Amino acid sequence: MRPQEIIAKKRDGEILTRGEINSFVRGITDGTWADYQTAALVMAMFINELSADEQNALTEAMLDSGERLDFSDIAQPKADKHSTGGVGDKTSLIIAPLVAACGVSVPMISGRGLGHTGGTLDKLESIKGYNVNLSTAEFKRIIKECGFAMSGQTAEIAPADKKIYALRDATATVESIPLIVASIMSKKLAENLDALVLDVKTGSGAFMPELSGAKKLAEALCRTGNAFGVKTEAVISDMNQPLGKYVGNALEVYECVKILRGEIDEKMQPTLELSIELAARMLVLCGVAETISDSKSQISNAFGSGAALEKFRQNIELQNGDAKVCDKPESLFDENLIQIEIKAEKTGFVAEINASAIGECVSKIGGGRIKVSDKIDFAVGYECAVKLGDEVKLGETLGVILCRNAAQADSIYEKLANAYKIEDEKSKREFDLIKEIINIKSQFKQAEQAEQN
Amino acid sequence: MRPQEIIAKKRDGEILTRGEINSFVRGITDGTWADYQTAALVMAMFINELSADEQNALTEAMLDSGERLDFSDIAQPKADKHSTGGVGDKTSLIIAPLVAACGVSVPMISGRGLGHTGGTLDKLESIKGYNVNLSTAEFKRIIKECGFAMSGQTAEIAPADKKIYALRDATATVESIPLIVASIMSKKLAENLDALVLDVKTGSGAFMPELSGAKKLAEALCRTGNAFGVKTEAVISDMNQPLGKYVGNALEVYECVKILRGEIDEKMQPTLELSIELAARMLVLCGVAETISDSKSQISNAFGSGAALEKFRQNIELQNGDAKVCDKPESLFDENLIQIEIKAEKTGFVAEINASAIGECVSKIGGGRIKVSDKIDFAVGYECAVKLGDEVKLGETLGVILCRNAAQADSIYEKLANAYKIEDEKSKREFDLIKEIINIKSQFKQAEQAEQN
Repeated sequence: MRPQEIIAKKRDGEILTRGEINSFVRGITDGTWADYQTAALVMAMFINELSADEQNALTEAMLDSGERLDFSDIAQPKADKHSTGGVGDKTSLIIAPLVAACGVSVPMISGRGLGHTGGTLDKLESIKGYNVNLSTAEFKRIIKECGFAMSGQTAEIAPADKKIYALRDATATVESIPLIVASIMSKKLAENLDALVLDVKTGSGAFMPELSGAKKLAEALCRTGNAFGVKTEAVISDMNQPLGKYVGNALEVYECVKILRGEIDEKMQPTLELSIELAARMLVLCGVAETISDSKSQISNAFGSGAALEKFRQNIELQNGDAKVCDKPESLFDENLIQIEIKAEKTGFVAEINASAIGECVSKIGGGRIKVSDKIDFAVGYECAVKLGDEVKLGETLGVILCRNAAQADSIYEKLANAYKIEDEKSKREFDLIKEIINIKSQFKQAEQAEQN
Repeated sequence: MRPQEIIAKKRDGEILTRGEINSFVRGITDGTWADYQTAALVMAMFINELSADEQNALTEAMLDSGERLDFSDIAQPKADKHSTGGVGDKTSLIIAPLVAACGVSVPMISGRGLGHTGGTLDKLESIKGYNVNLSTAEFKRIIKECGFAMSGQTAEIAPADKKIYALRDATATVESIPLIVASIMSKKLAENLDALVLDVKTGSGAFMPELSGAKKLAEALCRTGNAFGVKTEAVISDMNQPLGKYVGNALEVYECVKILRGEIDEKMQPTLELSIELAARMLVLCGVAETISDSKSQISNAFGSGAALEKFRQNIELQNGDAKVCDKPESLFDENLIQIEIKAEKTGFVAEINASAIGECVSKIGGGRIKVSDKIDFAVGYECAVKLGDEVKLGETLGVILCRNAAQADSIYEKLANAYKIEDEKSKREFDLIKEIINIKSQFKQAEQAEQN
């Protein structure tokens, strides 16, 4: 079938067959579809949407465009967590060792940051020597030895997704639920997981700001995961302010190590809370814990006994990193940085924090990428001194820029100051971190029972 | 403004500003928009459509991407005809000399054939030596000397349209009224015309088969022409069967010369009828005739006096062609061709003729192009022996293949035989050649009066 015929069908709002979707994805992979033909079809898919069947077919075709990891020789259940991306979102670094300490393997394939959100790989690279470019064999060996490994997407996993994603970014077709689902799930399904927990962000720093959109995305992700036999749940979490205390690569690793060490200050509490919520669900889905409350007490033990920190240390060593960060987290701070405080311009209550703006400012001073080719300064970043709902006084510190020089600070000071909205009255809005749990387990429970009958 | 922002607006069904459309067309012309970005925007335009203002802005931007012909030193009124393309559609070769003989200059920029429809340039090239690649200076000189010239689109005319059209063909975004209007009109407006008559085809051989679609397209074309100050009318004509007697390049030139010589057989009558209808409207729009009936009597004189044939001879000589075809039209026939008759398989009345199928068969034996790079065999073609509504007897000839060898004939015989549907009863359907005249002259008459008041 010619590309034009497939494009015309979707253009006219018709449902594509599995064969047509396979032909499209094969064409991207082998280059018989031109980029402009892919772009035209993706725009038609964006506007006319995809049915659940089409979304699953696209996910599977993209998955099948590459290799699947074979973990048949790992006896432990396998689970992963995926976040749709936020500012200061660093839970992977806590969840992976924590869940591994509780007897679940975590084959975590992560990405790099772009725009206002950071990437797990960039954060890990702020640990001296840490290697995020593992071969499949190394990746498996490290998981077997310490229960988890963290690596970049190899060329062998879902290559069709890589090509489509690059085009979507250039053609304003990123924010489409079926296309997002196919992109995320084609990569996650290649990990051959038993369970997957999704952290779908909503709010000013999320690319899906509205709760209704985040919920639709979460449901679609869960349906697709379950349709492919992976027990999948989603947590919709708040991104109306940066998560936790720090934004910036080394600073976020610092925060995670501090949490793993049990040296938690109040500003880090949300990072811990969200990490526990996500990890607890991974354990339950894998059958390692019966209930969320069982799961949370296992997690509490893994923290309290130092087992989670120990897993992290073991992993850093296996991935060639300098594990002294586990003992001396302060070593992650660069002594040459200067600190510039953002001051409150009035007394009142913090009513809004523009998380995207904070992420963009950190990117601008080198902490993230604006273009894919940008180099990162791991040390720089931002410390959040106040949270939504906090009472602040005129002149009080709202946050601290950690940067190389005064010119850098000047270039972002105003945007950061404007990122805070301070009101006279305390808002009646609730700033819940966990907005909603999307759980369609009942559906796969029923399916399991039907199979058993 | 980044391409993504413009694409996203149209993706979401918003109206683009003139500045945004200019930025898009400039980006295509100077290469700062990637093909895949253009393809994505064009798909969004296809699905979400364009407002009249957007369509006019796109037309103007594409027009302004190239040069306009300057005919200020030609005193005669200037008119052109444009057809949306059909099988056996050869009226240009009659209309241009006919209208020129009546005192209206015709700067006719034509195209080549692709798929089942032929192109005027290909037909002209079946006249030995005829040069369709005129420079702008030659084009103008020849118009001044004989009242008309026929040439291909130069790189200088609407280059943005060339790029967009190639992408539309490859991305299933051809059949969009606003995009068709912008494409046609950006080229026609570059001719700096006083009047334009459009021949919008409808039926089995037209790319807009439904009358309602053809009518919408005709109205949009007329609105745009008039908005740009060119008096524009459209004739909706029937393409449920090939026009006239022959399909094939040299054969169609033969039919035209025979008509210009007044040697007309019954099967050629529709070609003459449609040519007169279109030419008559060009003369009235240019003010050379008061009414259609005046116009038709001028046309009758131009035929009868031999003036139209004389104009054609003069033009052929000026464009370096061998004008003996005017005296010996039979010289256009290739003696080496074989003739294979398609026979009626039953007695009855011709109820349907699949014009596209006939066009495709002629292309297949070399009379047209399937790919842009295909070479044409000017001599081969098809003679239509019966028309819709004709009574035929079992074994009677429906048409004649003119081809190089029996293998060619075999390869298309069945498709041609199946192109005819013969029914026992005479259909009550009317097979009118002229379906409708789209005339929004009243609107520009009012506008003219308003200007004078």
